Amino acid sequence: MKYGFFDDKNKEYVITDPQTPWPWINYLGSEDFFSLISNTAGGYSFYKDAKYRRLTRYRYNNVPMDSGGRYFYIKDEDTVWSPGWKPCKTPLDKYECRHGMNYTNIIGEKNGVSASCLFFVPLNTWAEVQKVTLTNHSDGVKKIKLFSFMEWALWNAATDMENFQRNLSTGEVEIEGSTIYHKTEYKERRNHYAYYSVNHKIDGYDTDRESFMGLYNGFEEPQAVEDGQATMSVAHGWSPIASHYLEVELQPGASKDFVFILGYVENKDHEKWERKGVINKTKAIETMAKFDTAAKVDQAFGELKAYWDSLLTGFVLNSGDDKLDRMVNIWNQYQCMITFCFSRSASFFESGIGRGMGFRDSNQDLIGFVHQVPERARQRIIDIASTQFLDGACYHQYQPLTKRGNDDIGGGFNDDPMWLILGVTAYIKETGDFSILEEQVPFDNDMRVAKPLFNHLTLSFDHVVNHLGPHGLPLIGRADWNDCLNLNCFSTDPNESYQTTGNKTEGSKAESLMIAGLFVVYGRDYIELCKVLGKNEEAARAQVHVDNMVEAIKQHGWDGEWFLRAYDFYGNKVGSNENEEGKIFVESNGWCTMAEIGKEEGMVKKALDSVKEKLDTPYGIVLNNPAFSEYIIEYGEISSYPPGYKENAGIFCHNNPWIMIGETKLGRGDEAWEYFRKICPSYLQEISDLHKTEPYMYAQMIAGKDAYKPGEAKNSWLSGTAAWNYYTITQYILGIQPHYEGLKIDPCIPKNWKGYQVERKFRNSVYKIEVRNPDKVSKGLKSITVDGKEIEGNIIPIMPGGAHHVLVVLGNE
Amino acid sequence: MKYGFFDDKNKEYVITDPQTPWPWINYLGSEDFFSLISNTAGGYSFYKDAKYRRLTRYRYNNVPMDSGGRYFYIKDEDTVWSPGWKPCKTPLDKYECRHGMNYTNIIGEKNGVSASCLFFVPLNTWAEVQKVTLTNHSDGVKKIKLFSFMEWALWNAATDMENFQRNLSTGEVEIEGSTIYHKTEYKERRNHYAYYSVNHKIDGYDTDRESFMGLYNGFEEPQAVEDGQATMSVAHGWSPIASHYLEVELQPGASKDFVFILGYVENKDHEKWERKGVINKTKAIETMAKFDTAAKVDQAFGELKAYWDSLLTGFVLNSGDDKLDRMVNIWNQYQCMITFCFSRSASFFESGIGRGMGFRDSNQDLIGFVHQVPERARQRIIDIASTQFLDGACYHQYQPLTKRGNDDIGGGFNDDPMWLILGVTAYIKETGDFSILEEQVPFDNDMRVAKPLFNHLTLSFDHVVNHLGPHGLPLIGRADWNDCLNLNCFSTDPNESYQTTGNKTEGSKAESLMIAGLFVVYGRDYIELCKVLGKNEEAARAQVHVDNMVEAIKQHGWDGEWFLRAYDFYGNKVGSNENEEGKIFVESNGWCTMAEIGKEEGMVKKALDSVKEKLDTPYGIVLNNPAFSEYIIEYGEISSYPPGYKENAGIFCHNNPWIMIGETKLGRGDEAWEYFRKICPSYLQEISDLHKTEPYMYAQMIAGKDAYKPGEAKNSWLSGTAAWNYYTITQYILGIQPHYEGLKIDPCIPKNWKGYQVERKFRNSVYKIEVRNPDKVSKGLKSITVDGKEIEGNIIPIMPGGAHHVLVVLGNE
Repeated sequence: MKYGFFDDKNKEYVITDPQTPWPWINYLGSEDFFSLISNTAGGYSFYKDAKYRRLTRYRYNNVPMDSGGRYFYIKDEDTVWSPGWKPCKTPLDKYECRHGMNYTNIIGEKNGVSASCLFFVPLNTWAEVQKVTLTNHSDGVKKIKLFSFMEWALWNAATDMENFQRNLSTGEVEIEGSTIYHKTEYKERRNHYAYYSVNHKIDGYDTDRESFMGLYNGFEEPQAVEDGQATMSVAHGWSPIASHYLEVELQPGASKDFVFILGYVENKDHEKWERKGVINKTKAIETMAKFDTAAKVDQAFGELKAYWDSLLTGFVLNSGDDKLDRMVNIWNQYQCMITFCFSRSASFFESGIGRGMGFRDSNQDLIGFVHQVPERARQRIIDIASTQFLDGACYHQYQPLTKRGNDDIGGGFNDDPMWLILGVTAYIKETGDFSILEEQVPFDNDMRVAKPLFNHLTLSFDHVVNHLGPHGLPLIGRADWNDCLNLNCFSTDPNESYQTTGNKTEGSKAESLMIAGLFVVYGRDYIELCKVLGKNEEAARAQVHVDNMVEAIKQHGWDGEWFLRAYDFYGNKVGSNENEEGKIFVESNGWCTMAEIGKEEGMVKKALDSVKEKLDTPYGIVLNNPAFSEYIIEYGEISSYPPGYKENAGIFCHNNPWIMIGETKLGRGDEAWEYFRKICPSYLQEISDLHKTEPYMYAQMIAGKDAYKPGEAKNSWLSGTAAWNYYTITQYILGIQPHYEGLKIDPCIPKNWKGYQVERKFRNSVYKIEVRNPDKVSKGLKSITVDGKEIEGNIIPIMPGGAHHVLVVLGNE
Repeated sequence: MKYGFFDDKNKEYVITDPQTPWPWINYLGSEDFFSLISNTAGGYSFYKDAKYRRLTRYRYNNVPMDSGGRYFYIKDEDTVWSPGWKPCKTPLDKYECRHGMNYTNIIGEKNGVSASCLFFVPLNTWAEVQKVTLTNHSDGVKKIKLFSFMEWALWNAATDMENFQRNLSTGEVEIEGSTIYHKTEYKERRNHYAYYSVNHKIDGYDTDRESFMGLYNGFEEPQAVEDGQATMSVAHGWSPIASHYLEVELQPGASKDFVFILGYVENKDHEKWERKGVINKTKAIETMAKFDTAAKVDQAFGELKAYWDSLLTGFVLNSGDDKLDRMVNIWNQYQCMITFCFSRSASFFESGIGRGMGFRDSNQDLIGFVHQVPERARQRIIDIASTQFLDGACYHQYQPLTKRGNDDIGGGFNDDPMWLILGVTAYIKETGDFSILEEQVPFDNDMRVAKPLFNHLTLSFDHVVNHLGPHGLPLIGRADWNDCLNLNCFSTDPNESYQTTGNKTEGSKAESLMIAGLFVVYGRDYIELCKVLGKNEEAARAQVHVDNMVEAIKQHGWDGEWFLRAYDFYGNKVGSNENEEGKIFVESNGWCTMAEIGKEEGMVKKALDSVKEKLDTPYGIVLNNPAFSEYIIEYGEISSYPPGYKENAGIFCHNNPWIMIGETKLGRGDEAWEYFRKICPSYLQEISDLHKTEPYMYAQMIAGKDAYKPGEAKNSWLSGTAAWNYYTITQYILGIQPHYEGLKIDPCIPKNWKGYQVERKFRNSVYKIEVRNPDKVSKGLKSITVDGKEIEGNIIPIMPGGAHHVLVVLGNE
């Protein structure tokens, strides 16, 4: 069943039934102020850091699911309803939720009154703006009562739900005019407060939850709304909220706009107070003034739309397949940008508390958004590299607020350093900005020991070289990309986290074929970069190590039909036909085929055929198989999951593209495409009841064939899945690859595709590329013509600017 | 307004209106298996540790408040109702909740059907038993549908609400017969599972929350109940629950009993499985068999009642004042036992996540329950002392599951060690068991460095002696009893906890007058113990230090009208008339008057008069005044609270007794009694709307005079308040004090009291004590007659056993 449709013209997904199989959400904000919003207006807001600066309270995994948000209650005679259906759940005459690029518009209609609620975070603004338009479609005068509602979080999202013996005594607010200020702890160490305002004179307010809601009422039936009047409560401790009460009269056909603003302010120490006990509201008032009319809001909204339109002009596909075009042109790019902003911190599956920015994650995310916001990619690279240690190792995560490495989880994930090479080379290839390599970048945030970024890359490369195991393969450390394959953990205590507990890496023989393949791929990128920079000696030095690795993989990493996954602590094979369970894994076969190791000997084809035979399913490629049915202490968390879920034979949409790219290396465009289509959400819209998560967003995982409900997705939005699928479809299937010297063209498509057009902005020029496939091939170039002139090779050279027409004809030469 | 009444005969509080001003709760279990249960059946269960072994899921601070619990839904034709009113909130024809000693009985009646639900944890049992009796009071046959419901927590209560990207994929259950087994993570590192059973053949079940509840339904309207049938769902990931479905036919006048059991099982590693993938259910089946009929349940319930009756025979008061008698004989003792079991870990204000067992807390709690369960007090003392360090310092908290010190919070609270002297001497005075002093007790749980317990006391004493400041007063360290007076913390970062962040103790001049008074009181107890043991040399050595401390207090701790609270980091006075805010504090004036320091010079009287003048209010004594209106960085958390709340001028029911005892030292029985009555919950029943928390339980804090709503209580149940008020009323007001040589008699009562009787079990004898007050005095003994013979002095000697009649006549000699 479908719950909505794509509106490609407006770049919106339109939900027409509020009872989606799971909250289908959107994100507001892309700089400092962020909000999550579901199709029924649930969710929350935070400033920069979802753990330490949570502005509004949200309860995960509640009953009902998705409880709490920015709610409006409309009392029209005896009927109380909400524009987003929830929380009232009063049946609506009309409901529509339009999730667009960083905005959401929810429209509800009941008994002749419609409420259109537009939610967005204006550019360069620390606030969520909510424009509520009430319209009377009936023949009579309507007198309605409008209540707003949101609940303040007491800033730290973790202690907010744990430390009640303190929290229930600390809540403080101020009310001035139509603005409710939340100032809990502002008296002491905080230099920030939040506020919720409306641009109309109000007829009442509530700031104490129990007074507004009643102790025994749910969000669906606040007592004050039932009673039809605000209680004018002033919160002292307990749970502060913000609710405005407005009496609205609408003539037949008339409309009124109300602009609500949820904002955040920071004040310098000496500017905290207006007078004793009264907060300095200057900045809040300034922000409110910017959006105090519907016209100003509309203009800001226009600017936001223009901003996103421009972000999405870097790569525009016309393939003739709407499902593909809308993913490539809109939703996949959008997901990449959101993932860039949030890493893995806050979604409807990530509580915003547990995880900071990942070293590995952020580098991979970069390949999805670098063409959109190269200058922010540059900053991100510097931030990431600053958490590296002097020996090339690095913190696995860092906190977005402080940008410091996260001591809880520490380092020791031996794949981490290599991803920096991916991030940096992707950035330079896109921008041509080699100057980044000369930036002085600190180690562990200590500028006294800073070195040029290039040196960080060398250290990353050497970190693998310096940590080889008995077979000359990379030691795995705590884990490689698969955080749950914990070959040195040996955990028996259920109270400890596999990710943060001590590891027995000393004396371990655990080697990773995934890191081995990764090292070959990005080692070659490192070598290529060295050569471009004229550092031929370093290139030659590195080449020796890469060649050695290729040999080691061929000799010790090949299992006969596929690549091994690893050697364990004791030196036993993992991911081998010899194993009873977990005989074959995606990761090593992805990376070793991407690296084309043993291609001539047939290893790449054999490995990919084995993946197809043993891991492919109707819903995607499962991570490993057979699934682990018992806990294997020397494998760790992977074997803790029930079969078919997560790393234990779930379908990881993040690693499926590695196999797709491997297939393109063989020129098998049909196979690559088929894998792509299976997990691409726009193709899954019709099976939303099974798939469960948003049809416009990739999920991290889809339940595998061994699961109870194969095809059911989890953990949508924040995942390396976004970047890898975008990278794969644009660079390896559509085959348009940024390169140091220009735009490389190397498509690998299904044979029955007739062709496609791509408009690609690259280094100040716009390339209008038309690809034709008259011979029904998957791969191979007959000719490339640029502005009417055929070129040699497959790299379109960098042009001085302007628009350029490129004709690519595929075929057998 | 009242919401119920005391049923003293049955030792129950009977709630007759489900809509109490706050959930009014009870505790089940007193050994290993524990449950919290509200008057509407909300709450949760855990095994030993509320953080690491949470059995059922509960959401704190939810909307509506108190969501989740063990719920029954009764569908009778089209009406769906719950016996506890919630969650359905269908108006009932009758509602009654009887909270008794470790059991709760909730009775609801609707449309001619009554449901009586008895909840308790049988002695020596790892299970909560729920006996549901359905009775048809109507004239017709009733066909009703009964659904049970509870939601499994995924064991670790903290990650259960944070780590959804893992949690939502791990849930696993088994269903066999009428029993639903929750086995998430049992496959891997856990050796435990839980189960929920009923002793009848069921007509259906649900184990997946969304299937039972619906994604958009609240607890008040599960979809399966609305539909009138279970969906037979088998949870795989998401949120596992347990719900039985039973079709019940009742003839007119007929009753049926259903026994539900929520149990917990641990299996040894080699006994985990019945066969591959199927858990070993032997122990669960054994437990179920023990309670598979109503008769067996009734017998177990009788045993539980008998157990509690016997616990409460140690001290029985007949004062003629019901409000006082029921507190002394039932509820205050009950609270002491509950506090013993739970320390500060899990209440409706303590989330069960943040705090372990406190070193200081547990020692103080002991004085409230040692007469009830001396053998468990003994074990607790050993556990506590085992977390002491070799220099006498100690961990501030330890985890109940591991009994190991909590590294997060560490040590450095310089009052902590002294409380061990209180705990140990209270134990010996009650029991005469000096052998405990010879127990080998480890340091930091390391048996290799164990020493006899007596040496731990010496180290405790010396820890103060070895940590004196510039005035010869004790250095405060991180904090003394008042955790929020952080004189060395200087915290500016709102993301750090005042309790766990680094302190600048190095070079600090911060001294505590509270520790000084404490040292004198328990230093004297230490000296007395040494003398009883014949360690006269040690007694003399200690006496010098105590005398020095008394002098230091007189010289540097007296402010003119009261005792100073402290010196801060810089050596400035805290709690002095010189200060603008926080001029006077309870703690130092409590302890220095309890120690009778400067009594002859009039200091004790002056100090207590100042407390009365400056800190007394209609609802109790506020901690300090004037309240702090701004953050003072050198004072820390205390000044972070809004005025009138918590440590910033709230009424701490824990420290009010110190002033009461101080008053008894002056012989002012009226003042002591007045302070006692003001905060004693049974006297506050009529103002429940203001007081908010249970009228049968002390709260940690009542909002002070500077607060928005003075008299509003918070944080009921788990607080040193219980022990200190019990200790004060029984030993200092009623004046019956266990002593090494016998029972010391020293009442200090209101002058208008005519007398009272107390039955006191002590060292194998029962003393039936009658106190008469013919001269209308507060204090002073005319005579004590034991079994007809007048004795010298005021200590009733230890008798060989049996019952003894004691007549005490007060008056001016």
